Amino acid sequence: MATADNPISHHTSHTMGNGASSSNNGAHGDGATSSANGHNQDNILDAPLTTPVADLYKCNMDESEADQRPLTGVSHFSSVSCDIPDSKAGTMMSNATLVDSSVNLASFSIIDSTLREGEQFSTAHFNTAQKIKIAQGLDAFGVDYIELTSPAASEQSRADCEAICKLGLRAKIVCHIRCNMDDARLAIQTGVDGINMFIGTSSLLMKHSHGKDMTYIAAKAQEIIEYVKSNKVEIRFSGEDSFRSDFSDILKLYSLVDRLGVDRVGIADTVGGATPMEVYDKIDALRKAVGCDIETHFHNDTGCAIANSLVALEAGATHIDTTVLGIGERNGITPLGGLMACVVPTDRNFVLSKYRLEKLDYLEKLVAQIVGVEIPFNNVTWSLKNKD
Amino acid sequence: MATADNPISHHTSHTMGNGASSSNNGAHGDGATSSANGHNQDNILDAPLTTPVADLYKCNMDESEADQRPLTGVSHFSSVSCDIPDSKAGTMMSNATLVDSSVNLASFSIIDSTLREGEQFSTAHFNTAQKIKIAQGLDAFGVDYIELTSPAASEQSRADCEAICKLGLRAKIVCHIRCNMDDARLAIQTGVDGINMFIGTSSLLMKHSHGKDMTYIAAKAQEIIEYVKSNKVEIRFSGEDSFRSDFSDILKLYSLVDRLGVDRVGIADTVGGATPMEVYDKIDALRKAVGCDIETHFHNDTGCAIANSLVALEAGATHIDTTVLGIGERNGITPLGGLMACVVPTDRNFVLSKYRLEKLDYLEKLVAQIVGVEIPFNNVTWSLKNKD
Repeated sequence: MATADNPISHHTSHTMGNGASSSNNGAHGDGATSSANGHNQDNILDAPLTTPVADLYKCNMDESEADQRPLTGVSHFSSVSCDIPDSKAGTMMSNATLVDSSVNLASFSIIDSTLREGEQFSTAHFNTAQKIKIAQGLDAFGVDYIELTSPAASEQSRADCEAICKLGLRAKIVCHIRCNMDDARLAIQTGVDGINMFIGTSSLLMKHSHGKDMTYIAAKAQEIIEYVKSNKVEIRFSGEDSFRSDFSDILKLYSLVDRLGVDRVGIADTVGGATPMEVYDKIDALRKAVGCDIETHFHNDTGCAIANSLVALEAGATHIDTTVLGIGERNGITPLGGLMACVVPTDRNFVLSKYRLEKLDYLEKLVAQIVGVEIPFNNVTWSLKNKD
Repeated sequence: MATADNPISHHTSHTMGNGASSSNNGAHGDGATSSANGHNQDNILDAPLTTPVADLYKCNMDESEADQRPLTGVSHFSSVSCDIPDSKAGTMMSNATLVDSSVNLASFSIIDSTLREGEQFSTAHFNTAQKIKIAQGLDAFGVDYIELTSPAASEQSRADCEAICKLGLRAKIVCHIRCNMDDARLAIQTGVDGINMFIGTSSLLMKHSHGKDMTYIAAKAQEIIEYVKSNKVEIRFSGEDSFRSDFSDILKLYSLVDRLGVDRVGIADTVGGATPMEVYDKIDALRKAVGCDIETHFHNDTGCAIANSLVALEAGATHIDTTVLGIGERNGITPLGGLMACVVPTDRNFVLSKYRLEKLDYLEKLVAQIVGVEIPFNNVTWSLKNKD
């Protein structure tokens, strides 16, 4: 998998889901290349870009091959039947589900975005002291990453980012920036460990937000990935509103940025409309298309954010975005405590070895007080508190 | 499917999911019978019971056949790939998901249990006037069924049940009773439209709750089903804690009660540990095993109750249990408003033709006030209010 020309060797370690190993399988290359050359010449994503993109730009999921992929997920659908041994049939999860999901459920990372997504909550106006207190609380809990608002947002955001980077926390500090070189430079100057870069990839956002097409996005991504990696800083590439984007384009674009050396691709359910089965479909397809880590971001407009996060892990995602109490734009994203309640039963040892659940209560009270909300009577963390 | 000996012809109409039509396929009978006779003679569920149970008692999902079933759910896993037409790939749900789920998402029923499950919420102590107000509110909203606490629970419960039956509501009134003839007689005397009968089917409940085995349960169920149906009252059979029960036993038992003429089987995630993929597995298997309606009951301990309800509908369930604000034992079950937020985008016309969403606000405020809780800042109904 790792070659001198393939920056995938620099990726952070991650757990490969079913089929993930096929992403850099040489046997896929030829078919994909011929497909890219043979179909849809009008589609800019199928045309060669500049070197080295042209060399790397080979969709490894061509049309003819996609139908022949092994249907790894099929085991979910044959797992409950009369022939399940009695000892397995009564467990909380079906045997097949456990087999499919055990890898990522025993090894995933949390990117807490209370200080970025959470800042978009209607009553959140964090000052520096509050941001530091929240960052320290998140670090004490054990989140793997703390995501901050872009330093390009305001001078205050920049100064706060710098201050939080200087705290010497165990958690990596990443900031959420546009796919823009000035933003990347400013972020790196603050001392962050990583860049969470995004750009709109749905047709709506391409038309009404930045007015650019997929070719522009691919070229821009390449430029920034190279710059950020040359500074030895981690980088994620994410399509904003990617769940509503043309998913064949997303698979091709993410396959490209994977080969360009991103540490993670991010997939966002920006409007909160994704359903669990759709999440399984898409993350499963993405897991087969890229070798890098996969970060997911689920809004909670239909009450499915926690479940979607769990299903994403089962399908091969490696990183889940959360906020304390789920605060965020509209009615927010996956709550940190809710995610814990959901993953503790799947691999208690892993979760307890990594995260200090006893710190949740303090964190939830702190954030509730700062943003002026009451902790919901049916907060999912309830079940954790009563079981631990 | 309907024969003189097969009471399935009396069932309420329901939408048949993928594979549901196989449940009474004669071709299944022989294999199942030979399997039942050839394996596990020690398992009482494989041994003949008394007539007419013995005649009816043929599991239609025998061991050898289970592996050969068409894997209808497989379409979920091949739906997102490079060959999706552009016009489909960008939609909220994948094409295959829409095809699989469109039937039940365009035709399902709500069994609201605020006056039964909700009574188990820590601060719920409804008086008669409050119960009537809540029942009227639920009826105005348009729930299909209102579930009440068993009249056998107390003289007050019995009197309240009778009072609510006399209100002349459009919604059917059902009450939740033990698998016990005295309870059934008392319930029918109050004038209910239906009986929601349950009995523990997990090994824990069989051992520590009623101390009976599956043979006892099957025989008892037969007796009560016959009595209730002879009174022209609707009947559901449900295994308490059925998600943690031996699922091959559940499939066999439910197949039996289906043939005995129940209108619905109910499947309950009593401890709230079911995950979406597990729900798909089990409801999909159950949909293939029975021809009657399927009711589901999801607790929210891990924050997946809304998502699990949606996935259950996609897999072939027909009835979803809810309560206003999700109140119930521990941190409750699927909230009525949250379910609405989740199903409105899937079939807006169906949902709006059946349910009056503008009544939700009143219902939520009414119940919140009665049980003394604050409506959560992140209540999922928020997204409905802001989109309608």
